[in-house]
Amino acid sequence: MNILKLTVVMAALPLAALADPMPSWTGSEAKQQIISFIDAVTDPAGESYVTPAERIAVFDNDGTLWAEQPVYFQFIFAMDRLAELAKEDPSILTTPALKAAAAGDLKTVLEGGHDALIEVVNASHSGSSVEAFQTAVAEWLETARHPETELPYDQMTYQPMVELLRYLRDEGFKTYIVSGGGLHFMRVFAEQAYGIPPEQILGTYGETAYDANGDTPVIVKGPGIAFIDDKDGKPINIERTIGRRPILAGGNSDGDFAMLEWTTAGPGPRLGVLIHHTDADREWAYDRESPIGRLVDGLDKGPGMGWVIVDMANDWSRIYTGAN
Amino acid sequence: MNILKLTVVMAALPLAALADPMPSWTGSEAKQQIISFIDAVTDPAGESYVTPAERIAVFDNDGTLWAEQPVYFQFIFAMDRLAELAKEDPSILTTPALKAAAAGDLKTVLEGGHDALIEVVNASHSGSSVEAFQTAVAEWLETARHPETELPYDQMTYQPMVELLRYLRDEGFKTYIVSGGGLHFMRVFAEQAYGIPPEQILGTYGETAYDANGDTPVIVKGPGIAFIDDKDGKPINIERTIGRRPILAGGNSDGDFAMLEWTTAGPGPRLGVLIHHTDADREWAYDRESPIGRLVDGLDKGPGMGWVIVDMANDWSRIYTGAN
Repeated sequence: MNILKLTVVMAALPLAALADPMPSWTGSEAKQQIISFIDAVTDPAGESYVTPAERIAVFDNDGTLWAEQPVYFQFIFAMDRLAELAKEDPSILTTPALKAAAAGDLKTVLEGGHDALIEVVNASHSGSSVEAFQTAVAEWLETARHPETELPYDQMTYQPMVELLRYLRDEGFKTYIVSGGGLHFMRVFAEQAYGIPPEQILGTYGETAYDANGDTPVIVKGPGIAFIDDKDGKPINIERTIGRRPILAGGNSDGDFAMLEWTTAGPGPRLGVLIHHTDADREWAYDRESPIGRLVDGLDKGPGMGWVIVDMANDWSRIYTGAN
Repeated sequence: MNILKLTVVMAALPLAALADPMPSWTGSEAKQQIISFIDAVTDPAGESYVTPAERIAVFDNDGTLWAEQPVYFQFIFAMDRLAELAKEDPSILTTPALKAAAAGDLKTVLEGGHDALIEVVNASHSGSSVEAFQTAVAEWLETARHPETELPYDQMTYQPMVELLRYLRDEGFKTYIVSGGGLHFMRVFAEQAYGIPPEQILGTYGETAYDANGDTPVIVKGPGIAFIDDKDGKPINIERTIGRRPILAGGNSDGDFAMLEWTTAGPGPRLGVLIHHTDADREWAYDRESPIGRLVDGLDKGPGMGWVIVDMANDWSRIYTGAN
C-alpha cells in the first residue's frame, strides 16, 4: 500500500482504533461499558445520538477524581492554614477544636464532630479576598505532602479518571466537577489537574461579599456556609448552574447518589459511574463503614439502575497521576 | 485584479472591513469605543491582548438586552400565570394583591409595594417542576403581546445588542446574562433570542428541591427566594458561578453598578457599557426618577470610570429585533 492510500484508510478509522484513549484502565467490562456509551451518543447515525450541547458530564471530586483518605485534603489544608494564621495571631484559636487543628491533632478535631469541623473551616477559609485565599491554597499545594504517599496532593489525582475526562472532551462533552468540596479551593488546581476551567466547577461555598472600599473592589470570603453541594444539593446546584440534566455522572459515595439518580433518570441514553474503593494495596479499601466516602445506597441500588461500578483494584492498571 | 489576487487580498483583510458587525448602531463614538476595545483585546500582537479563556462578557437583561417598561416582562407573565392558575383553583388568591394581580390590575399590585410583588411571584412561580414551569413560560411567550407595541415580548429584544453579542462571540468572547430577572424564566427564550445557552445565564432564583418520589426524579420550584441577583449580588454571583472577573460588562440601571464597577476595576483593558434610555419616540425615556431601571450612580460616576454611555436615541438606528 502506498503512503497516499494508507493515509486515506487511516483517516477513515475512528481515533479509538488507532490509540487507546484510556490506557490506565484494564480491558475490563467497566471500561467497555463506558466506551460503548460514549460511542453510542456520539454516533450521528445512531439512534442514541446526543447533540454536543447536551453532552454534559459531571463528576464528584473527593474519592472520584482524587483521593480522600485519611480525610478530605481540603481539611488538611484548613488545619495547616489555621496553624499559619495562628503564628501571626494566636488569639484566633478561641476553642479547643481550633487549638487541636492548629496543632495538627486531627483525631481530637474529628471527635468534636460536625461543629468542630465547621469551626475549623470557618476560621481558615474566611476573612480574606478570594484572590488572597487562593494564593494561600496554591502555596500550600506546592509544599504540602500527603502523610502516607508523600506525594503532593494534586498528584494524587486518579490517572484513569484524568484520561476519561480528556476522552470525553475529545468526544465533544463538556466536563464539570460537582463536589462537596470548596468551590474556591478546587478552582486553584482543577484546571491544571483535570483540564476543567473555573466556570465548570461547582462546589460548596461560603458567604461572600462585594467590598468596594479598597483601591480595587474585590469579593471577600466571610464566615458561614451559603450552600452545601452534597446529596440533594448536587442535582439542585447542577440545575441552577448548568440548567441541563447531564447525560453522564460519576461519583463514589452516597453523597453522589442523588446526582447519579437524577442524571440516569432522564430520557435517552444515560450513564452513571461509581468508583468503588477496593484497592487496599495501591490506595484504600472502604465503602459501607467508612466515615469518609461512605457508600451503601450506591452499591445496593446502583447496579439495578444500570450504573457501572468501577472496581478500582481490578479495573485500573494505574492509580495516581503522580506515581506509577 | 484577477480573481485569485482579489481572494488573497480579501483573506488578509479583517472581517470588520468587509461587513459591519453592528449595522444597527449609528457611526457614533459609542460604537467606535466598543469596536476599538474588541479590536484591542483580540489583537495577538497588541499590548492589550486577552486570551480567549479570559474574554468574559456579562450583560444585564431587563433594559439592557430587551425592554422593561411599563414593568419587567416577567412580572406580566406572573400576573397572567396567576390568572391561569386561579381559573383552576380560585382559592389560591388569598390576598388583595393576588386578587388584583389575577385581575390584571397592575396599579393596585404596585401600590402594595415589595411584599405584594413577592406574593405574586411566589404564587405564580412555585409548586411545579422546573420543566412544567418553563413549558408555561414558553406557552405564554407564544401568545402574550406587549400592551403598547403589540409585539411578542421576545421580539422586544434590542437588535443592536443582539448584534453586539454575536460580534463578541465571533471574536472569541463567552457571553453571559447576569440579571435580576428569574433564572428559569430567562432560560426559556435566551438561547433563541440571544444565542446564550442555559449554562451562561445567571439570575435571581427561588428555593428548589430534589424530588425523587415520582416516576422520574425532578427539580421542583418552591416558594421563597434563595438568591437575588442584583446590585452587589451580581459580582458575587459572577465570582461564584464563572470564577473570573469579566473584561466587559453591560447594564442600564443602578442595579448593574457594582457589576460594572467590579468588572472595570480589574487590571488590563476593561469596558463598561451603560444603555441610557433616551428615546421616548421609539422606546421609552427614563433614568433618575424611574421606579423601573432607575439610573443615577451610573450617570454620575460611570463616565469618570471610562464607561461608555450609550445614548439610545442617537446611537441606535434600530431598536427592536421584532420591528424596524
